[in-house]
Amino acid sequence: MKDKHQIRLSGSGGQGMITAGVILAEAAGVHDGKNVVQSQSYGPEARGGASKAEVIISDQEIFFPKATAIDILLAMTQEAWDRYSDDLREGGLAVVDSFYVKAAGRPNVHALPLSQSAREEVGIEIVANFIALAAIAELTGVVSKAALEKAMLARVPRGTEDKNRKALEIGYRLARGAKG
Amino acid sequence: MKDKHQIRLSGSGGQGMITAGVILAEAAGVHDGKNVVQSQSYGPEARGGASKAEVIISDQEIFFPKATAIDILLAMTQEAWDRYSDDLREGGLAVVDSFYVKAAGRPNVHALPLSQSAREEVGIEIVANFIALAAIAELTGVVSKAALEKAMLARVPRGTEDKNRKALEIGYRLARGAKG
Repeated sequence: MKDKHQIRLSGSGGQGMITAGVILAEAAGVHDGKNVVQSQSYGPEARGGASKAEVIISDQEIFFPKATAIDILLAMTQEAWDRYSDDLREGGLAVVDSFYVKAAGRPNVHALPLSQSAREEVGIEIVANFIALAAIAELTGVVSKAALEKAMLARVPRGTEDKNRKALEIGYRLARGAKG
Repeated sequence: MKDKHQIRLSGSGGQGMITAGVILAEAAGVHDGKNVVQSQSYGPEARGGASKAEVIISDQEIFFPKATAIDILLAMTQEAWDRYSDDLREGGLAVVDSFYVKAAGRPNVHALPLSQSAREEVGIEIVANFIALAAIAELTGVVSKAALEKAMLARVPRGTEDKNRKALEIGYRLARGAKG
């Protein structure tokens, strides 16, 4: 794995992108021992309902904390794809929700049934964000599975651990299918 | 109010500093209509248990998203003060927890019973982070009270609204006492 990754998680407000960004950062920063900067910015477009969180993960110190050339993009909605995919660098990898994103025309896009699997297998769509994180972990190795689970369990409400663990399992499985 | 504020919220892991940072950012960015960048970085010191979140709030576009000269500092523990107060600019304002921070020797430091009031008046210490946000709002006007309440209620677990609203009221009251 190369030593610096710039990851953008995007969707609509209420899809848990910021929670996912914080958990990915804590997994890599606290549990995997990497240097990490996690950020969200709010401007006029945030008031329109789009939401994005960014995570930079590096083995080295991070001097400029703004993500510039995105390596790894998650888009949970068509609007998020349309608005936030331009910064994905050539050769970068994208994971998009196959239910909400219909037009994502570029190479190396993995369209996975994130929200659909959340609804059908877990019974609640909100865990689609954790399915997505697990898929990204499986596809890219940017964070270890053990770290991701630890960081997630430290932030989810008590009593929801089983559903959230199940979400991770679904994400690993979907991504293995996409790789294979 | 001048048009740019750099705010650092610091404490130990588990005191809710990152949650507070996200809520302050959403209050100012989504509800008050400001430009906001919210970030946390994780390096070797994060593994030691210290935690900080930063929020930059501006009427203008924010080009450099790293907080440099902090205007407003919250320190919930002595360790957080010792580690993170050096960047507080001259004339900057600090709010510290009077129970955990014993030595914060510089002008313009408001030592308030944040954790103690949370324990005694709400019955749970974890809401001290929201008492702190409310105190900062009252002392600095950096975010409106209506926006802070909206953003907080959108992120707290259902059923905890009353305790969290009470935390805001305590924070406003403590800060009014500190000003008066």
